[in-house]
Amino acid sequence: MKNMVYIQSGGPTSVINTSLYGAIKEAQNHPDKIGHIFGSNHGIEGLINDDLFDLGLEDEHTIELLKQTPGSILGTTRRKLPKDFHDPIYMKIIENIKKHNIGYVFINGGNDSMDTCNQIAKLCEELALDVKVIGVPKTIDNDLAITDHSLGFPSAAKHVINIVGQIATDARCFIHGKVHIIEIMGRNAGWLTASVDLLPEASRPDLIYIPESIFNLKEFMEDVRVIHRKRGSVVVAISEGVDFPRDVSNARRDSFGHIQLEGGAAELCRLIDEELNLPTRSIELSIPQRADAAYISKVDQDEALATGKLAVQSALKGETGKMIIFRRLSSSPYKIEMALEDVGKIANEVSMIPQEMIKDNTRMGDAYRKYLSPLIKGEIALEFKDGIIVMAELKKIKV
Amino acid sequence: MKNMVYIQSGGPTSVINTSLYGAIKEAQNHPDKIGHIFGSNHGIEGLINDDLFDLGLEDEHTIELLKQTPGSILGTTRRKLPKDFHDPIYMKIIENIKKHNIGYVFINGGNDSMDTCNQIAKLCEELALDVKVIGVPKTIDNDLAITDHSLGFPSAAKHVINIVGQIATDARCFIHGKVHIIEIMGRNAGWLTASVDLLPEASRPDLIYIPESIFNLKEFMEDVRVIHRKRGSVVVAISEGVDFPRDVSNARRDSFGHIQLEGGAAELCRLIDEELNLPTRSIELSIPQRADAAYISKVDQDEALATGKLAVQSALKGETGKMIIFRRLSSSPYKIEMALEDVGKIANEVSMIPQEMIKDNTRMGDAYRKYLSPLIKGEIALEFKDGIIVMAELKKIKV
Repeated sequence: MKNMVYIQSGGPTSVINTSLYGAIKEAQNHPDKIGHIFGSNHGIEGLINDDLFDLGLEDEHTIELLKQTPGSILGTTRRKLPKDFHDPIYMKIIENIKKHNIGYVFINGGNDSMDTCNQIAKLCEELALDVKVIGVPKTIDNDLAITDHSLGFPSAAKHVINIVGQIATDARCFIHGKVHIIEIMGRNAGWLTASVDLLPEASRPDLIYIPESIFNLKEFMEDVRVIHRKRGSVVVAISEGVDFPRDVSNARRDSFGHIQLEGGAAELCRLIDEELNLPTRSIELSIPQRADAAYISKVDQDEALATGKLAVQSALKGETGKMIIFRRLSSSPYKIEMALEDVGKIANEVSMIPQEMIKDNTRMGDAYRKYLSPLIKGEIALEFKDGIIVMAELKKIKV
Repeated sequence: MKNMVYIQSGGPTSVINTSLYGAIKEAQNHPDKIGHIFGSNHGIEGLINDDLFDLGLEDEHTIELLKQTPGSILGTTRRKLPKDFHDPIYMKIIENIKKHNIGYVFINGGNDSMDTCNQIAKLCEELALDVKVIGVPKTIDNDLAITDHSLGFPSAAKHVINIVGQIATDARCFIHGKVHIIEIMGRNAGWLTASVDLLPEASRPDLIYIPESIFNLKEFMEDVRVIHRKRGSVVVAISEGVDFPRDVSNARRDSFGHIQLEGGAAELCRLIDEELNLPTRSIELSIPQRADAAYISKVDQDEALATGKLAVQSALKGETGKMIIFRRLSSSPYKIEMALEDVGKIANEVSMIPQEMIKDNTRMGDAYRKYLSPLIKGEIALEFKDGIIVMAELKKIKV
């Protein structure tokens, strides 16, 4: 009987620990096939440095709390593995896989992590090791290729929609309102920023900018001026990845001499102040987009759990080098199916919003709303203690 | 029979519309004494410019939704009234009070708004007008004098505690972590920032800075350096009002030539980068602190509602020039009583955290935890539609 190891990789999402929960639960259904359930400390680092802990020794209640715990509970890393299999890192990984009799490796992550997944699967195959390697997708950016959507994105979108709607409502109640520029995560793809389009008219931003469209600074300034004159306030949603010419003369430099750009929202506020002389406020939604349990979507949570389970089931069936993907069968009623796809096809690809889903810089198209709407539905019941969300704390007992 | 007018003033809180809800409900209990229920558009501006709307014409469901709607639904202003009663503004106010047969004026706001409340009450008294003026307290800063706490503060604290706890959990899962500096509202008083002290050890910030304590930049740098070396990451909570010497050579200036200081968190990150060469991330919690319905405290909501009701009852009893205050009878079990206090005593005073509640820059004292703990308890059930919080939208039918 072989043991399994679960790896969390890259940036967290609000449901990344729910996938882990699903995998643990499913593994416990097969005590005849899976021995120990190990967690790798800080992503792939744990497997490299023989730093694993036994998740079978954690309390039942702690495991239940994974579903409402932010961050990556096993610890994470952004380390990329080298291309060359002769690198000594791979020797260490294989050594630890053998030492701990590991037959199942699960890697839960985004694009870079699927590359890691691909590498380890290939290496085990080359060495003819009986190790199954399965990828569990996650990224709040929703930019993984092939799959209909990525786990964590629906909850992040739900957070963004509700928080931006509430900010806009607050912003618009002042008689002399400001220009509010709200910066939303997404360097390459605008899925998360575009989600604000689902808000009703009263709380929807006036302007929406995503990296998929060209940002024209001159038009932006004119739009802001006109909207402020008409409405008394302006609310703008922009992706962090929106590109525009910036004055870098005052920018600070890091130790390598690279220019450190301030956030786009802060810089646009500075330009508005200079050119239009209007009061401004820049708001970065920041880490709560991927960490706030209050807006976890039930659909996202259910799917995260199901994916963890399916990962274990697939490995037990002998699948390897695959990632779980979603295929949408219908948006209304919402129906998806899960499937397996070669992880090599997914790794390092980027999925952007297709042009037919974009209308202009004030609205997305109907197709976008139809796509996103079912994903954010359903609320979850959170466990609070004295007003504070209870988070899982692992004992992390070393193997 | 006289009419009433309700005024919302200054910055919103997550429960400011709940006080309005309470006042409307109570007024509707006295159809023999109160005629129309008017809302003043954008705070005192509506009463100055004859811009009132009839809240009696709104739908029942819209009124219910006030309890989960952010912003100030009637519109707000930060305008201060002049000291001199001969100012023509007062003539306009009195004219509109007479024109609309107003006998009851309710002003829901913070320190500056209580000054407005005081002025109007005094003026009506001087002119021997039969108009009762009552103040309803609110401010997320919790810095109103005399009262045990201010409405809106408990929900803002609950938001801050939960969001900071989740940010810290996310921040600490990386193997090479950053220095996270989280900026929390509160220019003069640190009540809101200090609230993070209630978090359990695993998610509590390493350092907590409030305006009530002296901030030593040199010690701060050394603490950050030591904690990062030991823990691999640092989480710092600071009040926006924390004062330290800043490099203003690159600062932008507004149209009056005043230096526009960047947020303290961003500036401290810049200094850490320069001196310690550690990766940093600055996070401003910003508007969601006063606008996020997800973390409304049940205690805060119940008290906001009760205060709206008591304001109407007090005016009907003939009270005027008073603000509602809370007196704490016991913390465990939590017991308060509401009372009336001369609004003149409250206006423009500031309540700071007493020194005996502060331990050092890593923890508050037990007395602080005992004070805050009961205020954040209890969650409310929110109405969502397709994953989005439903917010009240008033028809605002002009009088």
